[in-house]
Amino acid sequence: MAILPIDGGRYGTKEMTRIFEEQSKIDYQLQIEGAAAASQSQLGIIPKKIGKQILDASKSGRITARRIKQLEAKSDHDTAALVEALAEKCPKDARPWIHYGLTSNDLVDTSNSLQMRDALLIIRPRVAKTAMILARMASKYSSLPAVGRTHGQHASIISFGLKFANPASEMAMHVQRIDELKKRVLICKTLGVVGTGSLMGAKSLQVQSRVAKILKLYPAEVSTQVVPRERYAEYTFELALIGATLEKIAVEIRNLQRTEIGEVAEQFKKGQMGSSAVPVKRNPIKSERVSSLSRILRSHVMVSFENIPLWHERDLSNSANERFVIPMSSILADDMLHTMEKILSNLAINQKRITQNLHVTGGQIFAEFVLEAMIKRGVPRFSAYRDVQRVAFEAAKSKMPYIEAVKADAAFSILDKKEIDLIFKPERHLGASPAIIRNVCKSVRAMAGS
Amino acid sequence: MAILPIDGGRYGTKEMTRIFEEQSKIDYQLQIEGAAAASQSQLGIIPKKIGKQILDASKSGRITARRIKQLEAKSDHDTAALVEALAEKCPKDARPWIHYGLTSNDLVDTSNSLQMRDALLIIRPRVAKTAMILARMASKYSSLPAVGRTHGQHASIISFGLKFANPASEMAMHVQRIDELKKRVLICKTLGVVGTGSLMGAKSLQVQSRVAKILKLYPAEVSTQVVPRERYAEYTFELALIGATLEKIAVEIRNLQRTEIGEVAEQFKKGQMGSSAVPVKRNPIKSERVSSLSRILRSHVMVSFENIPLWHERDLSNSANERFVIPMSSILADDMLHTMEKILSNLAINQKRITQNLHVTGGQIFAEFVLEAMIKRGVPRFSAYRDVQRVAFEAAKSKMPYIEAVKADAAFSILDKKEIDLIFKPERHLGASPAIIRNVCKSVRAMAGS
Amino acid sequence: MAILPIDGGRYGTKEMTRIFEEQSKIDYQLQIEGAAAASQSQLGIIPKKIGKQILDASKSGRITARRIKQLEAKSDHDTAALVEALAEKCPKDARPWIHYGLTSNDLVDTSNSLQMRDALLIIRPRVAKTAMILARMASKYSSLPAVGRTHGQHASIISFGLKFANPASEMAMHVQRIDELKKRVLICKTLGVVGTGSLMGAKSLQVQSRVAKILKLYPAEVSTQVVPRERYAEYTFELALIGATLEKIAVEIRNLQRTEIGEVAEQFKKGQMGSSAVPVKRNPIKSERVSSLSRILRSHVMVSFENIPLWHERDLSNSANERFVIPMSSILADDMLHTMEKILSNLAINQKRITQNLHVTGGQIFAEFVLEAMIKRGVPRFSAYRDVQRVAFEAAKSKMPYIEAVKADAAFSILDKKEIDLIFKPERHLGASPAIIRNVCKSVRAMAGS
Amino acid sequence: MAILPIDGGRYGTKEMTRIFEEQSKIDYQLQIEGAAAASQSQLGIIPKKIGKQILDASKSGRITARRIKQLEAKSDHDTAALVEALAEKCPKDARPWIHYGLTSNDLVDTSNSLQMRDALLIIRPRVAKTAMILARMASKYSSLPAVGRTHGQHASIISFGLKFANPASEMAMHVQRIDELKKRVLICKTLGVVGTGSLMGAKSLQVQSRVAKILKLYPAEVSTQVVPRERYAEYTFELALIGATLEKIAVEIRNLQRTEIGEVAEQFKKGQMGSSAVPVKRNPIKSERVSSLSRILRSHVMVSFENIPLWHERDLSNSANERFVIPMSSILADDMLHTMEKILSNLAINQKRITQNLHVTGGQIFAEFVLEAMIKRGVPRFSAYRDVQRVAFEAAKSKMPYIEAVKADAAFSILDKKEIDLIFKPERHLGASPAIIRNVCKSVRAMAGS
Repeated sequence: MAILPIDGGRYGTKEMTRIFEEQSKIDYQLQIEGAAAASQSQLGIIPKKIGKQILDASKSGRITARRIKQLEAKSDHDTAALVEALAEKCPKDARPWIHYGLTSNDLVDTSNSLQMRDALLIIRPRVAKTAMILARMASKYSSLPAVGRTHGQHASIISFGLKFANPASEMAMHVQRIDELKKRVLICKTLGVVGTGSLMGAKSLQVQSRVAKILKLYPAEVSTQVVPRERYAEYTFELALIGATLEKIAVEIRNLQRTEIGEVAEQFKKGQMGSSAVPVKRNPIKSERVSSLSRILRSHVMVSFENIPLWHERDLSNSANERFVIPMSSILADDMLHTMEKILSNLAINQKRITQNLHVTGGQIFAEFVLEAMIKRGVPRFSAYRDVQRVAFEAAKSKMPYIEAVKADAAFSILDKKEIDLIFKPERHLGASPAIIRNVCKSVRAMAGS
Repeated sequence: MAILPIDGGRYGTKEMTRIFEEQSKIDYQLQIEGAAAASQSQLGIIPKKIGKQILDASKSGRITARRIKQLEAKSDHDTAALVEALAEKCPKDARPWIHYGLTSNDLVDTSNSLQMRDALLIIRPRVAKTAMILARMASKYSSLPAVGRTHGQHASIISFGLKFANPASEMAMHVQRIDELKKRVLICKTLGVVGTGSLMGAKSLQVQSRVAKILKLYPAEVSTQVVPRERYAEYTFELALIGATLEKIAVEIRNLQRTEIGEVAEQFKKGQMGSSAVPVKRNPIKSERVSSLSRILRSHVMVSFENIPLWHERDLSNSANERFVIPMSSILADDMLHTMEKILSNLAINQKRITQNLHVTGGQIFAEFVLEAMIKRGVPRFSAYRDVQRVAFEAAKSKMPYIEAVKADAAFSILDKKEIDLIFKPERHLGASPAIIRNVCKSVRAMAGS
Repeated sequence: MAILPIDGGRYGTKEMTRIFEEQSKIDYQLQIEGAAAASQSQLGIIPKKIGKQILDASKSGRITARRIKQLEAKSDHDTAALVEALAEKCPKDARPWIHYGLTSNDLVDTSNSLQMRDALLIIRPRVAKTAMILARMASKYSSLPAVGRTHGQHASIISFGLKFANPASEMAMHVQRIDELKKRVLICKTLGVVGTGSLMGAKSLQVQSRVAKILKLYPAEVSTQVVPRERYAEYTFELALIGATLEKIAVEIRNLQRTEIGEVAEQFKKGQMGSSAVPVKRNPIKSERVSSLSRILRSHVMVSFENIPLWHERDLSNSANERFVIPMSSILADDMLHTMEKILSNLAINQKRITQNLHVTGGQIFAEFVLEAMIKRGVPRFSAYRDVQRVAFEAAKSKMPYIEAVKADAAFSILDKKEIDLIFKPERHLGASPAIIRNVCKSVRAMAGS
Repeated sequence: MAILPIDGGRYGTKEMTRIFEEQSKIDYQLQIEGAAAASQSQLGIIPKKIGKQILDASKSGRITARRIKQLEAKSDHDTAALVEALAEKCPKDARPWIHYGLTSNDLVDTSNSLQMRDALLIIRPRVAKTAMILARMASKYSSLPAVGRTHGQHASIISFGLKFANPASEMAMHVQRIDELKKRVLICKTLGVVGTGSLMGAKSLQVQSRVAKILKLYPAEVSTQVVPRERYAEYTFELALIGATLEKIAVEIRNLQRTEIGEVAEQFKKGQMGSSAVPVKRNPIKSERVSSLSRILRSHVMVSFENIPLWHERDLSNSANERFVIPMSSILADDMLHTMEKILSNLAINQKRITQNLHVTGGQIFAEFVLEAMIKRGVPRFSAYRDVQRVAFEAAKSKMPYIEAVKADAAFSILDKKEIDLIFKPERHLGASPAIIRNVCKSVRAMAGS
């Protein structure tokens, strides 16, 4: 019976969880044994035909997690059990050459890389797709004026499209970051017990290069028994950073969906039960879930950092926690991306409410533009500022629309009524928003569209 | 097929994982429904006989996780599904009164408390037992002189028993900490949707008190929809702190087991495969595992902190991550305690090596006592220090035992040979160690022995 | 010129920063030297009159940070420099007996305890005072109905007083937590180089007890060269937990102060410049600052955890970071408490807006009570629920007040108009809020009022 | 009087702390005002001559932190105070045009970028230099056989040069990482209050590009009021990751310097006081300091993560903590690099001890090579393994050198004595170490040598 909610099926897409199932881990490790043996045969380190025999057995699909667990129960050593299980499927001659010159951790670390490679093959396109969805939304709402809020307060006017252009651009940056870190993170290491390749001698580097090529990984330039854990920290950091960007979007949605704001809403599935208390209540629970899981992702970064300064040629203090951190980071980041795709694809945008909200302050949001117009007419800034503020406070007190108050106050007689009307038109204050959004869309397409 | 290594069975004792299985969570929540209905009947909030009917159904053992998952698939709401499943086992009359006045989160939070209550019922005795084992070891090696090391350097002489007395005392502190935090952490909350108990009116506090009493929990003094997440942070913190103490022991063992030190060794299971490289190599892998998992425990504290400032009467951003953090913290802390019990119970102590190590510095470890003796004879400290140091460096250079060098140097002629011999006896330098160890044993018995 | 904003004066109250100034650290350490010498004289470990001489010199006020820095420049050893500076103010005879039997870290750790003792002497009353302010506010607004929000959505009705009662109760818990941890955290350790008190022999424990008593600390039961770092983790955790509760209050204020909500507002200092953009904008910058600093406090918990598993009888890897973590945690927690006192004492509560907000959903917030009334009349829950929801959605669509829609719909004809009017009165739905608030006030007074 | 040890001068190089002094922050912000005004004049947004006037005033060197603090005391707004102080040094005509179209945070964020730019100008060369020092050491000890240790146990033989080649390679990776992140982190943002550049209209992007070019920064593609905090997380992460690599080196040194190992030692400054207890004791205190500070660096990553999901167009919850995190991360990372340079440049390498340590296990470290030789002779692996292990245990028990035991046991008669002698020569087991080290040196030169 399931204990944690990944095994219980609550979190994790099928594609991603499959990568981290027990059997998959074994299959990845068998690939490495196969690739190593094949390479060693080619380089004449082990007998010619042996490589093929081991490779064939490793690909046979007949080496099961169950069998390996049985063997591990005896030896208390998981790699030894895997080697033994592989040996059971090999001709007798081939058996002594299985795992030749390798150490357990060559399998562990290189299979970690294979899992991360495949995880990134899922995550990168999702990041790119999210960037594209956001860019399209940015473009769609490029000319829709909306309230810009700072400190939770109405501050000015923005294009509503900027709400999406900002994370779109960051998502494109994530594509760039993933592309940059691959060469450091996806490491193949087959240099044996202390990273000297001693049993294979000078040829060990050639073996490693060949295995790396077969596995579509990068050969380790240098290692101890293990690959440097800085690389894993980079991986968990980047996934957590993607998580944080998703959380940023999620927090924005949760805030914009507030009853008092109502500018957006997560779609409500038919038949889904909302609150029994308030029937029309629509809780942004998907966004809240994204917010929640992001906290786990970043907590893994701390674990990864502590795994870096291992003692000498390695200690095992990274091992147990990586069995959680690597799968959980990958599975949850992917789940969050998948969830965000669904959120964004179905997000209800309430344009009417967006427009209404511009007027919540009775026009005071336009004060900066009144100030500006005064200054352009030559009124000294400090004096103009005083008037703008004075009239604003009076209007607020008397609940008068700010535009009326401005028109009525002598201090602003320098501006004619028509001009004032124009100042209070939100669509005139989008500034460079459309240009910015165009630029973002272009660079998203360049980075993520490929 | 298992994904994470708790579901895969690698980590977690049976007793503890059972608490966090899906079915257990449901059973705990049913207990709450039952207790609430029974209490409400007693207080006349719902019809007399109904309480008993709901209670009976809740205890029937016939409400399965499987059925609830089916129902949840339709409603997307886990509590609604549980209530519906419970209703299926109740007489028709009783159905409208199920979950009366409660909100989903009354079940979630109160069942969390029940799980934490039961987790602590396992953890507290384990902590106490570990304290007792350590105290016994401290006592056993109370008069065995050993090297005290600071900065990784031989620094002075201690009783080897102090190696265990220190963590024994801290383990006793953990018993104290657990006893102190229970009243804050094990909270029962049945005050409904926003913590006002509105549907039950003034009697809602009485209901909550009764339910708390039935469930052996503490009633919430005040709450929003949820109990304050400070309490959960206390829980994960204390488990992580226990983890850190265990890690401290583990790191000590790993260091003392170093090939060059060899004072202790984890027991090696018969048939267990060690390194294929160095046959006599004994890796302290259990201690390394404890070190590794400790990093996860403390990472959960960060997650718990971020869950504290929820918006208004609650948002859901704590929910998804608590599904991981509460079980994982409990299961891993317990696993580490269990592992540490096994490590300590079977720890090989190499007394010969401990004694040999006292002489690795050629007696220089006694220099402070030579200095002391000189000062007691009236030699000014700074002048005595110069001589002690000069002779120490000369002895080091010429590989002469320090005792010989001291005897040979005129600066120390004030001390006679017999006195010098006594100074170089390690057993004379245990200071208050035996008294300290006795005190620790006494207070461990007082705190943990109950 | 200042670099960090504590030295620059931006953060930190005078009382608290004084505790952590360089000279104070020295003065605390001199107190320890004085207390140790006096105790050793009393116990006959050092000559009778010497203790008094050292004590007098230690209290002379003539030993400056500046002089010690000069001496440290030569020896690269801060404690040696302090001892030397103290020696300069002692009679020649007394000099060899300064720091007798102690090690540098006896000063470091025990002076840390003195600083934490004095920091808690400031923090505990502030926590208690904040609890009292909150309790008074809870009491004042006990009968004011307000919107209760979950997931950012209007969910139900609460007493506005609960907004303060919740953190009031948690603040009282903090008083309790502080009182509980003192005995573990405020440790006096004078047991010398490896915690055996070897130079003072059996009497070393008596010395330590006396010094502890003089310094109002708790004697270490057992130690290595250092006191267990679990204790420091407890200290930084509790300060961070206080920080998190303050942050919870701050986030609530920031949310309630949103332009669209407007239920509370931080006071605006006269002459303080707000936004130049929107004159009437009032930014909750004090609350935002509290939110910001809370993140630093909790980050220190991670540092403290990593300091626990030191090697053997200690390594120095805790030292440099504790020079930041202990002062910063203390100073920032205190600054946040001080800020929160000011925020709360001057918080503008907009009762009119609070009441208006109850009606933002057009009465839908009362749906649960309509449902309740129907069930009480014997309508089956699921059928009642369907009607409540159907009418709610129709009303929402047609912008009809929910009360009108209910009155107009045949499904609710079982309820008479007067009854319906009563259902829609918010003050009838405070449930147990007033009783809860009374309880909180009582327990706050009991815990914090002393 | 100093409070924190950066202001107190204990940590931080002169070059780096200067960047973060109060006056420097102001000077950076004045540069931005100057560059913005000049660019706006060029583009015809503000009058032609005004730009030059503001630029000149901004460069005058006459605007002091002290004056700004005076002004801030009145307005409670630091940017307003800076603008006012700048205005005091400008002709009257120019005053209204200062800060035109900008918002406070344009100064804050862009000056953060300038500080990070200058910090990286110090850090990158230090990283490169450390890589070069390590590469040289790797090369120097390339052919020196040493014990390779895993789990704290002797495991096999490595080239001692690998101890340096591993971190050398990682340091080169850090150069690569720094070069990659600059384009994302060093952002210039002058788009005003909500990132739309509204007052400057379409030309605002041109202004920003020009200012960026003048300041040697990258223009923001899109922003809210602030630049995305993902970028700051990248900065603090990379500094913390450098810190972790330094910590890895430091932990290795601390372990190799252990009394029982003695392979390396930090240089001891003349006159520096060591332990008064054990005169010849040499504590690796610089390495311990690096270990300690690394914990602070990584704690900042958590703070940075939490700053990412700001509300809407920004809230201020990042502000207070960034005043600590950015300077502290930069100053401490630099201090650690500087310290590590000194450690490595003066590290005593004890070749004799390194060679002696190879024999601590009585030759058992060669068992894997005996096994290998047997297998190459056609002995089945499992049978060979049994013999190797059996003889190893017997030899260990009887304290016989393993080489003698092998020569004496019939199971190994297949190997002749000479061959056995060769097997026990450590220099024959360096495997690919020299080639690996050559590769590392080459790539370090390519990446860091420029």
